[in-house]
Amino acid sequence: MEEIYNFSAGPAALPKAVMQQAQSEFIDWQGLGTSVMEISHRSAEFIKVAEDAERDLRELLSVPDNYKVLFCQGGARAQFAAVPLNLLGDKKKALYVDAGYWAQSAIAEAKKYCEPVVLDAKELVDGKVSITPAEKWESSNEFAYLHFCPNETIDGVEINDLPVTDLPIVADMSSTILSRRIDVSKYGVIYAGAQKNIGPSGLTLVIVRDDLLDRSDVKTPSVLSYKTLAEKDSMFNTPPTFAWYLSGLVFKWLKQMGGLEVMEALNIEKAALLYDAIDASEFYVNNVASDNRSKMNVPFQLAKPELDGLFLEQATAKGLVSLKGHRAVGGMRASIYNAMTLEGVQALVDFMHQFEQQHA
Amino acid sequence: MEEIYNFSAGPAALPKAVMQQAQSEFIDWQGLGTSVMEISHRSAEFIKVAEDAERDLRELLSVPDNYKVLFCQGGARAQFAAVPLNLLGDKKKALYVDAGYWAQSAIAEAKKYCEPVVLDAKELVDGKVSITPAEKWESSNEFAYLHFCPNETIDGVEINDLPVTDLPIVADMSSTILSRRIDVSKYGVIYAGAQKNIGPSGLTLVIVRDDLLDRSDVKTPSVLSYKTLAEKDSMFNTPPTFAWYLSGLVFKWLKQMGGLEVMEALNIEKAALLYDAIDASEFYVNNVASDNRSKMNVPFQLAKPELDGLFLEQATAKGLVSLKGHRAVGGMRASIYNAMTLEGVQALVDFMHQFEQQHA
Repeated sequence: MEEIYNFSAGPAALPKAVMQQAQSEFIDWQGLGTSVMEISHRSAEFIKVAEDAERDLRELLSVPDNYKVLFCQGGARAQFAAVPLNLLGDKKKALYVDAGYWAQSAIAEAKKYCEPVVLDAKELVDGKVSITPAEKWESSNEFAYLHFCPNETIDGVEINDLPVTDLPIVADMSSTILSRRIDVSKYGVIYAGAQKNIGPSGLTLVIVRDDLLDRSDVKTPSVLSYKTLAEKDSMFNTPPTFAWYLSGLVFKWLKQMGGLEVMEALNIEKAALLYDAIDASEFYVNNVASDNRSKMNVPFQLAKPELDGLFLEQATAKGLVSLKGHRAVGGMRASIYNAMTLEGVQALVDFMHQFEQQHA
Repeated sequence: MEEIYNFSAGPAALPKAVMQQAQSEFIDWQGLGTSVMEISHRSAEFIKVAEDAERDLRELLSVPDNYKVLFCQGGARAQFAAVPLNLLGDKKKALYVDAGYWAQSAIAEAKKYCEPVVLDAKELVDGKVSITPAEKWESSNEFAYLHFCPNETIDGVEINDLPVTDLPIVADMSSTILSRRIDVSKYGVIYAGAQKNIGPSGLTLVIVRDDLLDRSDVKTPSVLSYKTLAEKDSMFNTPPTFAWYLSGLVFKWLKQMGGLEVMEALNIEKAALLYDAIDASEFYVNNVASDNRSKMNVPFQLAKPELDGLFLEQATAKGLVSLKGHRAVGGMRASIYNAMTLEGVQALVDFMHQFEQQHA
C-alpha cells in the first residue's frame, strides 16, 4: 500500500504504531479471548487501562494533584453547556474571549445559562488576522470565569499567551492539547474532544481544579457534572471504553516519543516547514499574523481558487488526503497534529511546490 | 485459542463475524489507507456509513417514517436527564414505572426537572418477583409521559406488555433492543445505550416520534436536545464514528441472520434452555416469576453461596467468562444478548450440571 498522509482536521489520523497494536489485539486482548471493548468497565482489566491512561496523561502534562482528570462523552460541544452549568455558582456573567468559530459556538451555548460578556479579540493588523494580547484582556470579579479557545481549527489561529487574572481560566484545548507543554496550574478547567490529538471521537477529556467542583447548578445533568464524574472516577455512566483504551495507547506512544518537550519541538519544525513554504511562494497565501498562526491547523488559499479542485485531486492521487478547507472558509487546510510526521509535511510541501510550478 | 463464551452484562460481547471484519479493515478501510475512525464525520465515506446504519436499523425495527433515529452520546444515563428536558413541555409531572434498579436511577435524575410520580410495579407472588400487568398501570393526562424500563439487567426482570394510554410511552431499551420484534408506533421515545445489543459503549440510540421534538426546555444542553440532533442528522457534535460504524456492521449482521423474527426465536430458545436447567435443579435458583423473566439477563444463585468463588473460577477455566452477578445482588448473572450463541448457553448449562453433580 502506498504511504498515505492524512491531514484530516478531525476525526484525525492516529499514530500508526498505535493503530497497528490495536489491530493486532482487536479480538484477543491480553489473552482474554475477547476485545477490550467487550469487557465490563468495572473489571480489573479495564480499571487498569483507565488508571494507566490517567497516570500517563498526568505525567505528560504534569497535572498537579489538586486537579481531577475526567474521561467524558459529548465532545467540546457538551462542555459548552457543562462549563457554565458547573462553574457559574452564584454569578450571572462570564467572560468569553472570541477568537473564532469555536469560541463563538461556546458563547452561543453559554447564553442558555448566563450572560456571556464577549471580548472580541480578533484584529486585522496589516491585513493579517491577529489576536489581542492576553495582557490586554480586561476582566472583572463579576465574572465567574474566563473562557477561551487557544487554537481555532477552522481559522488556523492560535493564542499562546495567558491573561493574568484571578478568574478561573477555562480553555477549550480540543485541537492543541498534548501538542506542546502547558502549565496546568494556570487553568481552572481544560477540556478537549479526543478526536484530534488524543484518540478517536466520542471521548472528551476534562481537567478540573478540585476547588471548582462544588459550584454545580442543581439542574446540571449528572453526565455533565464534574463533581459526579469525579466522585465516580468517570464511571457514573458506562464510559466509551474502546476510545479510552486507544487514548491510553496514544499517551504511551507520546511517552515513548520523548514526551511533550519533544513533540513541541517537532510540531514547531513541522509548522515552520509548511508556513515557510507558503510565505516563500507567490501562489499560496495564509492570512494569519505570524504570532497567531496555528501550529496544528494550517489553512491556505491558492492564488487561483479555480484550481482548488485540481489541487485536491492531484494531492489525493499522491496520498496527501483530507486537505479541503472547512466549508466556512474554503481553500485548503492541513491539520498537522502529533500523529502527522515530518515526512508527511515534507511530502505536502514538495507537492505544493510542484503544483505551483505547473500552474503559477 | 480455546472458545470463549462471554456473558458480560455490558459492555458485552459483539458478534464474532463483526469483530473479525472490523479487525481486517482496521487500518485500511475501503482502500483509503486509513481507519474509518480517522476520517471526517462529514466525508462522503462516513456519511454513507451513517446513512446505511440508519436505514438498516429502520428496516430491522420497522421504524415508521414519522420517527427520527438519533445516534447520540452519554448512554442511558444521559437520557435520564434528556427525557424530562425534552418532553415535559408545560407539564410538571411524569409517570415513572418502577420495576428495578435502572427505572429507579431514571427517577432519581428526573427529580432535577420535574415531579416523577412513581408507580411501584414490583410484587412478590408466591415468593417470586412479579411485575404488575401494564393494563393496571393507572395514568392521567396531568403527566407529560410514562417512562419504564422493559428489561432490568440487574434484577433479570422483563416487562413484555404495554399499557393502553394516550401518554407518550418512553422506554429505556438498553438491554432488550433488537432482541425481539417491537411495535415502534406504540412508543413516544425509545432509547438504548449501545453496549449490550447494538455495538460498543459510547453510543446511544434514540428513536423519537417527530411530534415530540418541539417541547424541549430552553435550558436543554444542545447535545441532549432531540430537536437539535434531529436537525443536524446526529452531527451537531462530532459523533463517535467508530462506534457508529461498528453498530452498522451489527445491523448488517442481524439482517444476515434473518432479522428480528429469527433473533427473537433464538433468544427464546437460549433463555428457555438456561431457565429450564435452573428450574430442573435443586442447586440453582432464579427468583423471578416466569412471565417476567428476562430473556437477556439471567441471574441465578447457588444453593451454597460459599461456592460462588469456585464456580466462577472453574467456569472461567472452561472459557465461560463474566458470570459474576452485579455487586448489588451477588450470585451469578448470565447475559445472553444477540451475540451469545446457543452453543455458548449449552456450554454453560453443561458446566452448571457438572458443577452441581460435584458439589450438591
